[in-house]
Amino acid sequence: MNKSIVLLSGGMDSATALSIAKSKRLSCYALTINYGQKHSTEIEKAKLIANHFQVIEHKIIEIDLTVFGGSALTDKSIDIPENESQGIPVTYVPARNTIFFSLSLAWAEVIGANSIYSGVNAIDYSGYPDCRPEYIEAMQGLVNLATKATVEGNSIAIEAPLLSMNKIDIIKNGIENDVDFSKTVSCYQLTKQSKSCGVCDSCRIRLKAFEELNLIDRIEYV
Amino acid sequence: MNKSIVLLSGGMDSATALSIAKSKRLSCYALTINYGQKHSTEIEKAKLIANHFQVIEHKIIEIDLTVFGGSALTDKSIDIPENESQGIPVTYVPARNTIFFSLSLAWAEVIGANSIYSGVNAIDYSGYPDCRPEYIEAMQGLVNLATKATVEGNSIAIEAPLLSMNKIDIIKNGIENDVDFSKTVSCYQLTKQSKSCGVCDSCRIRLKAFEELNLIDRIEYV
Repeated sequence: MNKSIVLLSGGMDSATALSIAKSKRLSCYALTINYGQKHSTEIEKAKLIANHFQVIEHKIIEIDLTVFGGSALTDKSIDIPENESQGIPVTYVPARNTIFFSLSLAWAEVIGANSIYSGVNAIDYSGYPDCRPEYIEAMQGLVNLATKATVEGNSIAIEAPLLSMNKIDIIKNGIENDVDFSKTVSCYQLTKQSKSCGVCDSCRIRLKAFEELNLIDRIEYV
Repeated sequence: MNKSIVLLSGGMDSATALSIAKSKRLSCYALTINYGQKHSTEIEKAKLIANHFQVIEHKIIEIDLTVFGGSALTDKSIDIPENESQGIPVTYVPARNTIFFSLSLAWAEVIGANSIYSGVNAIDYSGYPDCRPEYIEAMQGLVNLATKATVEGNSIAIEAPLLSMNKIDIIKNGIENDVDFSKTVSCYQLTKQSKSCGVCDSCRIRLKAFEELNLIDRIEYV
């Protein structure tokens, strides 16, 4: 069976990406990155999701991006916005996807994986530069040159199956592929003690999609 | 003054890269990454070098690449070779430069730096895939698309001034630009307690270059 690294945050998108990788009968290795995000509870959710899909291994690694700051998700001095953002949102984390892909590339090379699955999508967060198709293409170009594995002819494909999906498509795909969305989290403000806020960008996009699908979102809101 | 992130390992190459950035009157921010390398003493050397060149700030960040392993530098089960390597050496660390550039990109974006200086060079370690000109070009292509800063028109140049230099050129350039090579380290086997081995790839390349230049290498060897 082909091996795949799946970047798993604990959110809806990466859970769906994992479910799609599983549906292709790949041996999945989940990678979760604790980068100092305010909503660190997502790491607990990632464990539940990894367990649900019985991944071969789930690594959780630490890289403290709060030392750089510059994002509402990693910088205490920047509040999470509660109104719809214009342009690139302050929740954008500088170079996050580039860092995540590079770490997954290291693991992919070591275990001989042929793909890296990620839940990036360009629709709901069109403001994030590192969620666009041209970015994914450039990352693939880099990967083709970056490692001993790829130089020696073993391809490592950057897979972003959700790239052109909206949240409604993502939920439909996830349900089809056995995602339990009650085990996912979206809220940027969630700490271990509280319920989802319902008002941050991420909560609003989630709630709207569930509503439009006439489905009940079985997570707790304040 | 333009700001620059300089990837500083504590070795000769990155020290020279920093000296070149300083010679261009850039405001230098040094980034050192403690990735679990066996030769962790290089981090102490990086501090000396950063101090010598009076960088604006020196960040040392931790990312444990031993969790992936797959390299003689990060994996206890793989010995550092003491004979000349054929092909891509076992000291190659999967995706290391990609990880390092991605981290420096995060900091560059947050502080508004226009360049990232690195000591990568394709000559002495031609076996490392992520030290080749085509890799650096692909990284630049990715950077141009990856961040809010670059999408908004602020370029971040990937600078690899040592790319085509051999060790002799590097030492000459370093001396010209005030590098004190006695504050650098090359040995892969060096721990905090011991002297440089003189026999690993890295030591041999260093010793040979000093010898050919008729210069004394003022670090201690066993």
